[in-house]
Amino acid sequence: MSILVVGSIALDTIKTPFGQAAEVLGGSATYFSYAASFFSPVRMVAAVGADFPQKHFQLLKSRNISLDGLQKDTGKTFRWSGSYETDMNSAKTLATELNVLQDFRAIVPKHYVDTPHVFLANIGPNTQLELLDAMDKPKLVGCDTMNLWIATQPDNLNRLLKRVDVFLLNESEARQLTGITNLIKAAYDLLKRGPKVVVIKKGEHGAILATREFCFVAPAYPVEDVFDPTGAGDCFAGGFFASLAVTGRYFDETALRRSVIFGTVMASFNVESFSLDRLSRLTDEEILGRYSKFKKFTHFEPADHTTSLSPGILAQS
Amino acid sequence: MSILVVGSIALDTIKTPFGQAAEVLGGSATYFSYAASFFSPVRMVAAVGADFPQKHFQLLKSRNISLDGLQKDTGKTFRWSGSYETDMNSAKTLATELNVLQDFRAIVPKHYVDTPHVFLANIGPNTQLELLDAMDKPKLVGCDTMNLWIATQPDNLNRLLKRVDVFLLNESEARQLTGITNLIKAAYDLLKRGPKVVVIKKGEHGAILATREFCFVAPAYPVEDVFDPTGAGDCFAGGFFASLAVTGRYFDETALRRSVIFGTVMASFNVESFSLDRLSRLTDEEILGRYSKFKKFTHFEPADHTTSLSPGILAQS
Repeated sequence: MSILVVGSIALDTIKTPFGQAAEVLGGSATYFSYAASFFSPVRMVAAVGADFPQKHFQLLKSRNISLDGLQKDTGKTFRWSGSYETDMNSAKTLATELNVLQDFRAIVPKHYVDTPHVFLANIGPNTQLELLDAMDKPKLVGCDTMNLWIATQPDNLNRLLKRVDVFLLNESEARQLTGITNLIKAAYDLLKRGPKVVVIKKGEHGAILATREFCFVAPAYPVEDVFDPTGAGDCFAGGFFASLAVTGRYFDETALRRSVIFGTVMASFNVESFSLDRLSRLTDEEILGRYSKFKKFTHFEPADHTTSLSPGILAQS
Repeated sequence: MSILVVGSIALDTIKTPFGQAAEVLGGSATYFSYAASFFSPVRMVAAVGADFPQKHFQLLKSRNISLDGLQKDTGKTFRWSGSYETDMNSAKTLATELNVLQDFRAIVPKHYVDTPHVFLANIGPNTQLELLDAMDKPKLVGCDTMNLWIATQPDNLNRLLKRVDVFLLNESEARQLTGITNLIKAAYDLLKRGPKVVVIKKGEHGAILATREFCFVAPAYPVEDVFDPTGAGDCFAGGFFASLAVTGRYFDETALRRSVIFGTVMASFNVESFSLDRLSRLTDEEILGRYSKFKKFTHFEPADHTTSLSPGILAQS
């Protein structure tokens, strides 16, 4: 029961208050796949250039990520350069070089066409639609997006949302797309556009999941050393979507809530280093350990009052 | 087992994207006291001018808030004017008229001196220290502050923190005071300055509570109609501090976690209207009802895996 993902593979150059890294492995498909691989087999459709370092293939293969859909073009690999200042919640893009993504077509290998779970990681909605058209009745379709596509391809994005089960986006994107400031209202607005599940990612402030039946809110994992937030949203998506897909109970409330926490946990590890450095050392035990710790960080007892709060009642309870 | 609070009483003029209100009842002591009164008897030390409307006294008295420490001066009542734009999390101050607060001295009536619980709501640290000096060995001392005092009275504030058990402040204030961006680290830094408990309020993003023994993180209540955030932080403090004080178990982990949720609930009601309009219609049953609903909004099951996440394991669990 695999997941097929389409998205970007990037060589990122990043500056944070704590250090810098040049041309390190990144991209939405990369982070999503790597995080997802802890829960489910993953198949990738993406493109790299002739300059893509061999060692990165090895890293992805070491997690059994299937690369049959990886197009190796003659040009250069997509590059992104960004910096974070005191607000680690939002990156400032310094440069984007599309390179091989300029003419990228989402070509799905024949033996991938019946993959039951499809995730459209952040890439143009035209490409996301193209990939979806090539698939044979997937059971679960998820997608992510970004501010650029909301501004430049709103029609494609709206067409896509009608065909998506689970839609993940960050809080500023939710506000941009709906024109609604209140995130709970924004989530309900997005549910009217097609998705059965909407997840609004708030970075260091956690996440909101909404369906037509219930709403779930979670803080972020309290990470003390946020080193580089790049890819955290994609790792959240990978942990969320893959831990949900493997249950087979895609719209089950318990499974959806649990998957938000797996997404939160995967993102919390990823921010502790540049690129995939932390995830490449991550074990299943650490994931389950942090899930349990998160339960402790967020636990509180019921109010335990049966009738009234009137002064004195609380003291006796 | 009362709470004595010192802070401001204001006539607020507020503009939000949803409406405006002129010269409505506000101020840190007002919001704190009103929210706290649902849990504990409250005694107020504050000042108003000769222009303070009689009806506001009635509103406070209707919650049995003791006003023996209220100084009625000949001048004008403190006034604050602010506006909120799309970001409802932070107010833009348009004007501040100190008026009677200019020469306000925190004079504690004799029969208030042995009040066991003291809350120093947002007002100058010099005034907060003056009030604390007048008290007879309180069992629990809490305080709040704001950006202005961090910038103008850092020495007084640091002196004060050595004498405070519970310190509440918002996220930008925590960053300003510590110079630390990461809020978990900032909380631990603040714990070194005296308080046994630090609560960082994040508005629509929830709250973090830290002691030397544990850390608790909570999202905000998912309010759909945030009408006016003014006073939300003071209502959080009132619900938090009063629900904690009445238990008598001030540093008990279960009590502290529960009190964060009562603070969250009180703030969530307050943002639904201008001034005290919503709180003045609030019932104990509504408070307990929203506490229970919050439990549902945030609940998730344990991961429920005993050995490994490896693909397929989740599906069988």
